Amino acid sequence: MQALVYYGPGKRSWEEVPDPRVQDPDDAVVRVDGFTICGTDLHILRGDVPEVAPGTVLGHEAVGTVIEVGPGVRTVAAGDRVLVSCISACGRCAYCREARYGQCRGGGGWILGHTTHGVQAEAVRVPFADGSVHPLPEGVADDAALMLADILPTSYEVGALNARVRPGDTVVVVGAGPIGLAAVLTAGLYTPQRIVVVDPVEARRAAAVSFGAELALSPDDDVVAAVRELTGGLGADVGIEAVGLPAAFDLAVDVVRPGGRIANIGVHGRPTTLHLEDLWIRDVTITTGLVDTSSTPMLLRMLQTGKLDAGRIVTHRFGFDQVPQAYDLFDDPVASGALKVAVLR
Amino acid sequence: MQALVYYGPGKRSWEEVPDPRVQDPDDAVVRVDGFTICGTDLHILRGDVPEVAPGTVLGHEAVGTVIEVGPGVRTVAAGDRVLVSCISACGRCAYCREARYGQCRGGGGWILGHTTHGVQAEAVRVPFADGSVHPLPEGVADDAALMLADILPTSYEVGALNARVRPGDTVVVVGAGPIGLAAVLTAGLYTPQRIVVVDPVEARRAAAVSFGAELALSPDDDVVAAVRELTGGLGADVGIEAVGLPAAFDLAVDVVRPGGRIANIGVHGRPTTLHLEDLWIRDVTITTGLVDTSSTPMLLRMLQTGKLDAGRIVTHRFGFDQVPQAYDLFDDPVASGALKVAVLR
Repeated sequence: MQALVYYGPGKRSWEEVPDPRVQDPDDAVVRVDGFTICGTDLHILRGDVPEVAPGTVLGHEAVGTVIEVGPGVRTVAAGDRVLVSCISACGRCAYCREARYGQCRGGGGWILGHTTHGVQAEAVRVPFADGSVHPLPEGVADDAALMLADILPTSYEVGALNARVRPGDTVVVVGAGPIGLAAVLTAGLYTPQRIVVVDPVEARRAAAVSFGAELALSPDDDVVAAVRELTGGLGADVGIEAVGLPAAFDLAVDVVRPGGRIANIGVHGRPTTLHLEDLWIRDVTITTGLVDTSSTPMLLRMLQTGKLDAGRIVTHRFGFDQVPQAYDLFDDPVASGALKVAVLR
Repeated sequence: MQALVYYGPGKRSWEEVPDPRVQDPDDAVVRVDGFTICGTDLHILRGDVPEVAPGTVLGHEAVGTVIEVGPGVRTVAAGDRVLVSCISACGRCAYCREARYGQCRGGGGWILGHTTHGVQAEAVRVPFADGSVHPLPEGVADDAALMLADILPTSYEVGALNARVRPGDTVVVVGAGPIGLAAVLTAGLYTPQRIVVVDPVEARRAAAVSFGAELALSPDDDVVAAVRELTGGLGADVGIEAVGLPAAFDLAVDVVRPGGRIANIGVHGRPTTLHLEDLWIRDVTITTGLVDTSSTPMLLRMLQTGKLDAGRIVTHRFGFDQVPQAYDLFDDPVASGALKVAVLR
């Protein structure tokens, strides 16, 4: 079959590889009907995730059709249409038993396209299938469902849920890439008073407004002053960091009021300075996290019933014969205006 | 009357000052029957809290008897025995209306011995009396009640409550001064699996064990490894910082497992480095806060009914004629073995 193989920093190839097969009793083999590319895949290609071995097939967001399951798999069978989640859960370890699947110690967690072959391929072996795939409800389109493999549950669990967004809150989302826009959608489920988005790219600010933000600012604006003015001098209730850079994290901290909650979603490669000399007295809560995908079944129901418009995050669609072009376009999102790209059969 | 007056860094004097009187309708004047000294008072005397004007009477932890109230005061009257809380609440601002009294924007918050004359005196004017004093139940001793003016609600609200301590948790308290020991007592209300305390001073480690810690370690020990061994390799559920130094904060962060909560209680004068490059994926929650004293009525009930043994934190008692000696002793707690000192009539 064809697959996107990582060969070390800067090197990728869409090429012929061996077909996957069931190796463990808990495995499923899934024919991939669609996949997408994540910013994390670009990080891998820049060499930022050194534990990814050259020769690994990338990708952790897919929809597909089950071809075969091992004897231990109970919840899906050949022929079922499924979402392949970015998180695999052994279901048996201390963390899985508290639904903290992202921290699975039993061999799961984020493994697809990371420590085992991923989904950017014509087929994929999915370990711990019962804890890693979700049957797709009728009427859910492949491209919309793809948004639930990673970015929607990530923005919901690590953003809105961790930050405890409440009706009437003022929420500031720093970053209007796919995760930031998904955070606008999922924070919006709690009917905040307003969402303010901060991004340097004008097209992304415009997208944020179209996704429901009341106001979109540039980081060159005085964001803290603008938010204070909107909130009677208090500051935001919630800051959501959806970038992964120290300056973005610092802004999310600075913009909240005493009693505010800061949820970090971004993947960080560097430390920042935490100003405890100011913060100790300010009643702030800072959270970090990797998605558990425990919300994925709920989000699938919301998608099916039209309460969540996830498909709009997909801006570009490609066929399986255009994977290198999809990567090239996604690698330069400012020029292309790309949010998420879907590669579909 | 006599009072302890701050005259700039390093300068304090127990001397004659004018008697306080009711100035505003919401004021009470309270005869002080007992007060204590806080580490924060020592910070003021070192010049670390520059907003305290020379000439200010220090102190924010007292018990006393109401002498006079203004016409706006409804909940206490002359002759009532009261706890004077470290936090004064206007009761009317946005923060008071969410019980976040420590952040009061209506003229309250931490004002006694800070921006107005404090309680280290024979009497004190207490602004916003309805929101600042608590009637003392029968049978509660002055010295035990004094521990509820600041350190017990601080350790409970900013420590145990913010960290969401749960039955069965492994809790690590960094620092075994008065706040750290109060954190051991108040985290203990949730019946954690174990409390581990870290402090460089052997006598304080011994005190921590007598207050209920299972294990007391020195920061020179490999605390992270010891806690991992106790927890099946996972790490602590909760880290409570009760020191106010970057190294203590960093240890509280390092010692928790994925999914752990870190509550900072310490008063910090310097920033620290937040290792987002490790933490972003670790599902941690970090909280900071100033006490609101919203828990003080509950803690008073617990004290009255014998469910909280707060008086044991008081190690030294002095008369009102020994205030300079009380300060000298508290200023060198390692040599003196002092936890809290009570100055009593």
